Amino acid sequence: MIDTVWLDEEKDLLMYIDQTLLPNELRVCSCSDIFDLSAIIKRLAIRGAPAIGVGAAIGLYAAASRFEEESEQGFLYSFTKCAEYVTNARPTAVNLSWAANRMVKCANESLGHGVEHLKSALKAEALKIYNEDIETCKKIGIYGDTLIKDGAGILTHCNAGSLAAVRYGTALAPIYIAAEKGKRIHVYADETRPLLQGARLTVYELCESGIDVTLQCDNMAASLMASGRIDCIFVGADRVAKNGDAANKIGTSGVAIIAKHYGIPFYVCAPFSTIDFSCESGKDIIIEQRDGSEVSTLHYQKRMTHESAKIYNPAFDVTPSELITGIITERGIFKGDEIANQQ
Amino acid sequence: MIDTVWLDEEKDLLMYIDQTLLPNELRVCSCSDIFDLSAIIKRLAIRGAPAIGVGAAIGLYAAASRFEEESEQGFLYSFTKCAEYVTNARPTAVNLSWAANRMVKCANESLGHGVEHLKSALKAEALKIYNEDIETCKKIGIYGDTLIKDGAGILTHCNAGSLAAVRYGTALAPIYIAAEKGKRIHVYADETRPLLQGARLTVYELCESGIDVTLQCDNMAASLMASGRIDCIFVGADRVAKNGDAANKIGTSGVAIIAKHYGIPFYVCAPFSTIDFSCESGKDIIIEQRDGSEVSTLHYQKRMTHESAKIYNPAFDVTPSELITGIITERGIFKGDEIANQQ
Repeated sequence: MIDTVWLDEEKDLLMYIDQTLLPNELRVCSCSDIFDLSAIIKRLAIRGAPAIGVGAAIGLYAAASRFEEESEQGFLYSFTKCAEYVTNARPTAVNLSWAANRMVKCANESLGHGVEHLKSALKAEALKIYNEDIETCKKIGIYGDTLIKDGAGILTHCNAGSLAAVRYGTALAPIYIAAEKGKRIHVYADETRPLLQGARLTVYELCESGIDVTLQCDNMAASLMASGRIDCIFVGADRVAKNGDAANKIGTSGVAIIAKHYGIPFYVCAPFSTIDFSCESGKDIIIEQRDGSEVSTLHYQKRMTHESAKIYNPAFDVTPSELITGIITERGIFKGDEIANQQ
Repeated sequence: MIDTVWLDEEKDLLMYIDQTLLPNELRVCSCSDIFDLSAIIKRLAIRGAPAIGVGAAIGLYAAASRFEEESEQGFLYSFTKCAEYVTNARPTAVNLSWAANRMVKCANESLGHGVEHLKSALKAEALKIYNEDIETCKKIGIYGDTLIKDGAGILTHCNAGSLAAVRYGTALAPIYIAAEKGKRIHVYADETRPLLQGARLTVYELCESGIDVTLQCDNMAASLMASGRIDCIFVGADRVAKNGDAANKIGTSGVAIIAKHYGIPFYVCAPFSTIDFSCESGKDIIIEQRDGSEVSTLHYQKRMTHESAKIYNPAFDVTPSELITGIITERGIFKGDEIANQQ
């Protein structure tokens, strides 16, 4: 497993792997500026709901550690503005606002002991969010592993692995735990157009971890399921509604529909921080529409369609609760209609 | 509409648009050599089941017109060998062997009047296959148009348009006829990984014909159907079995499963020459497995996955008959279980 985001505690810097360069280059970068942080999240250098949350928390601390405000009120005002600014970088992943809100809450609750104390409190909170992510993902992996039999073929869509979180990932956590236990497993990774997170990231981290993986185009998933190679499906989620509907990378709902057709169990792996209890159903989830150039050119190279073409490019879709066999969280595995009771 | 393959009657040359260069360049090429012909079909410079059939027939004539054999038996022997060689270029499209067999049959039936007469007979047969394709596709278009209401949103996968046939195409024929009649329609084209026939070819020919078209990645089809934008789906077929199972570009079966989930009619458009009555069901259809580099690199440019990754790259999949609302042919629209009775 690869660590994706972390705090350089000596220099108070957010350290991260620039995921847009993978698999061709493994470059570790640093950030301590709030405009940089927003840009990094927007251009998907840090992506994956849990990693965005942890990255935002550490990045907010790194920026705040450099604030020159001497009054607590001035500091709090600037910090709150920064948190709002970063929250707007991407609309769909709930972890971003969840982490930013938690940092703002921490700042508010730590008032009264001076600016240096505020900075220390924010550092501790960022590290807590970081460590909780590792622990949470490991628990998801342990619950998810119970669903994997020896010799299983497992399909996944997009990247909800190490590179989407801090270490274990969500959808890939059960796979890492199963592999640690010595189960023979074979992962089938959807390439995940338009930005190829499956081809670039999931295949990369599984190959680097010595786990058997086959890459296919998104439209080959039905053929794979028809062939009998797939025993179960694990995907992540960017936001889960109260009724169990789950927003995840575009294409996830299609995989779920095809899985249901072939009677293959379909699991969403998500920490509780991904559940948005203020969201009644998937209809309330805002879906980010991204630039058409992601579809009309690949990696911003040669144009591959007519210049007059309109482009449809939603980043996510919503998988209805009834298509989800179970939602695997750090507190156990739930049916969609059981989520509301966990609030 | 664009003409894709034709015979230069003065020079006895197969003329064709090299489809691997679209949409960046519209290059017309010629061919009169049997090894070239096979290579052209193999590398998808001519692709789409009907176009492959017509291209093979004209290409076989162009090669035969240059034979130096003086005896009819020598000519027939060489011609039969050439036909066998070309037939092996791609295994899934039935039109290839259908057209080659028809040319061989014509040669056999034209014996007894000398080699020059044989050449004339083969020329006439190639032109007949060419003209029949135009007529057949137009009829498919006329039948298919009856299913399109004014203002319809129509999804298609891969390219089964002008560029896959001689002129009207199969899946796009109903769209061209509907547009000619003045119906307002909006086409949604799956990009169709790995080789992007949708992005490169379908979008190209529809834009050039002034038809409103939106491009999306394959994995966005479910999101489009969920959004209510899609009223019906038209796809082509490379081979239809006796029970109505249809092999078509990889990803077609997934589209059909998702369409069924959303209650959207799913039509296969195919000339009778695509029906293989010797094939009891889809299980008997050989699916071409293509090179993994088509998936791991795009347009053979930058590698986009880990070097250790295995690749799954079937060119086609089989859509079971029960997922197909109707098969639109030049003789009318049939349910899958009605196909066997049309032999």
